[in-house]
Amino acid sequence: MKFIIQRDRLLESVQDVIKAVASRTTMPILTGIKITASSTGVTLTGSDSDISIESFIPLEEDGNEIVDVQKPGSIVLQARFFNEIVKKLPLADVEISVENGFQTMIRSGKAEFSLNGLDAEEYPNLPKIEEENIISLPTDLLKTLIRQTVFAVSTSETRPVLTGVNWKIGNGEIICTATDSHRLALRKAKVQSNTQQSYNVVIPGKSLTELSKILDDSQDPVIIVITDNQVLFKTKHLLFFSRLLEGNYPDTSRLIPSESKTDVIVNTKDFLQSIGRASLLGEGKNNIVKLSTVGTSNIEISSNIPEIGKVVEEVQTETIEGEELKISFNAKFMMDALKALEGTEIKVSFTGAMRPFLIQAQHDDSMLQLILPVRTY
Amino acid sequence: MKFIIQRDRLLESVQDVIKAVASRTTMPILTGIKITASSTGVTLTGSDSDISIESFIPLEEDGNEIVDVQKPGSIVLQARFFNEIVKKLPLADVEISVENGFQTMIRSGKAEFSLNGLDAEEYPNLPKIEEENIISLPTDLLKTLIRQTVFAVSTSETRPVLTGVNWKIGNGEIICTATDSHRLALRKAKVQSNTQQSYNVVIPGKSLTELSKILDDSQDPVIIVITDNQVLFKTKHLLFFSRLLEGNYPDTSRLIPSESKTDVIVNTKDFLQSIGRASLLGEGKNNIVKLSTVGTSNIEISSNIPEIGKVVEEVQTETIEGEELKISFNAKFMMDALKALEGTEIKVSFTGAMRPFLIQAQHDDSMLQLILPVRTY
Repeated sequence: MKFIIQRDRLLESVQDVIKAVASRTTMPILTGIKITASSTGVTLTGSDSDISIESFIPLEEDGNEIVDVQKPGSIVLQARFFNEIVKKLPLADVEISVENGFQTMIRSGKAEFSLNGLDAEEYPNLPKIEEENIISLPTDLLKTLIRQTVFAVSTSETRPVLTGVNWKIGNGEIICTATDSHRLALRKAKVQSNTQQSYNVVIPGKSLTELSKILDDSQDPVIIVITDNQVLFKTKHLLFFSRLLEGNYPDTSRLIPSESKTDVIVNTKDFLQSIGRASLLGEGKNNIVKLSTVGTSNIEISSNIPEIGKVVEEVQTETIEGEELKISFNAKFMMDALKALEGTEIKVSFTGAMRPFLIQAQHDDSMLQLILPVRTY
Repeated sequence: MKFIIQRDRLLESVQDVIKAVASRTTMPILTGIKITASSTGVTLTGSDSDISIESFIPLEEDGNEIVDVQKPGSIVLQARFFNEIVKKLPLADVEISVENGFQTMIRSGKAEFSLNGLDAEEYPNLPKIEEENIISLPTDLLKTLIRQTVFAVSTSETRPVLTGVNWKIGNGEIICTATDSHRLALRKAKVQSNTQQSYNVVIPGKSLTELSKILDDSQDPVIIVITDNQVLFKTKHLLFFSRLLEGNYPDTSRLIPSESKTDVIVNTKDFLQSIGRASLLGEGKNNIVKLSTVGTSNIEISSNIPEIGKVVEEVQTETIEGEELKISFNAKFMMDALKALEGTEIKVSFTGAMRPFLIQAQHDDSMLQLILPVRTY
């Protein structure tokens, strides 16, 4: 294997695929990045066996030569060292060549690195995925779907299926749901597909978070292919594979109340900032704050850590309809939900102090956030 | 106590004094910030008993009212909570008042915090320092003196005196020296003083690092007052006290070689970047790299981690004078030294492979860096 490549373009790809590389693994070869040079360009692969990322660098792009492949071949190099080396190369071009077995020379200017490579034949193959049935989402919408749901997954392994986000796709619609059983985030969107097939899968939250980091903010389509145990996200130069979580995702639709007893419409920013202040003195590890209606136009937000002090603040609402209410909840859950919602006004629909309550943007039902209150009153 | 104050100005002072506040302490009151309102303004104090910082906010500055003191008095508030609360206040002004014993109300807009304060009488007094003999340094020079020496202090408590920087002041000159016994950094400067008295003290490295963080980059003078066991740094609105380290600082002058056998003059940036690359494969916890002269104009920098790989690079020098040389040293020490030096060209003076070597800016002897080599050849 021998090729000359633009350093910055190589670095970009290394930093994409290294997100999948395991720092600890039972398979030592997975601490490496696989590099393959072919007649069409250079492919880098990183994997921790849950997530695999493949980045392709073409010979040229927009008429500029990026890679000059002088001899095809492959090698696996230690990811951490290779990444640091590429970052610090002195010139804009670098030559990478395998010499003497697996010994790999990295030359740039007068600097000459020699790394002990590993046999690329030992590197596990990525899943083979037939691209028959494909779904397509614009990159920016995909990132929004992830951002608005993934924060609500469970961080506990007690029910592993809750560490993922449930994706239901069918009838031209995708519904993403995440819950840690104390709160729930749901987002719907239109989706393009070449198939009538419907899907109901659970994608690990960690995979979606990593995917989100390497996607740009364009409106270019991301092609999504779902199989029994894998999902593939495909962009112009990237393949991102994640395993799916096994097990049935709970039916969350019955959790979502269809009626409410108290509806509050309030400015999102005012409400978020007030909850932020109350959270400073939120009690206990659940960071509990209290909300109560004051007449028909104000709500009072308060909290209290007995040994430190307390805070109380009235927030003016747009409208309050229905019964008087006193309720307590986790301030962090509320702040997460408010940050995920879009729009200047939100509607909070309560069904009494002990029932889950809904938070939605005022004129947008594509997204909802649900929080279970905490018993304090 | 009752006053109204500009939030941003209060926050600035809180963030200065909180740098001295201990997170863990045997004296619970030191986890607080002491606030004193008087007829001239508001004073905040933070301390961990090693370092104490006092910040003064005057009633007005440049004709703008900053504080309106309605009732003088003092209180101690939990630093961490007070800092977070001030950060999140909704309006640009805040009213702080002590009511009902030590209970302190913090009001801004519709938000009303009530914190359980502590009796300011219980707060330890800051050292009383007579300002008879004073030394003066411009702020930016003081920060440079600190930056160029403090990195070389010892992080081990085996010889506590080496965790500080030795300051010798006399004859209108200050000499700052730091060493961890493997390397040494020394910087001299002219200093203004109203006294003939000379000083030889050791200031904790941590104190100097914290001091550096709260000083601005102006040329305004910092007044320095040194006593038997304390040093005071005084700027327009800040007092920074640090205890001095006890014990005799070792005589380091005999460590500094007066003759050399090999002198290399090289571009600082080229040399630093080459050492940076070699450090990626520097061996062992000492991150060892090797340097050897190649003829009369090049040096070779190399390193090697047997199981990973190696790197070799030739760097062109300005001149090499004297004997051929092969030497090994800690790459991090060399990078620290090169970053501390100013100037585009540096001179490295070696006295054989086993003797300490000197690094200096080419035309500036106010500063020197000394590194002990590692035995590998």
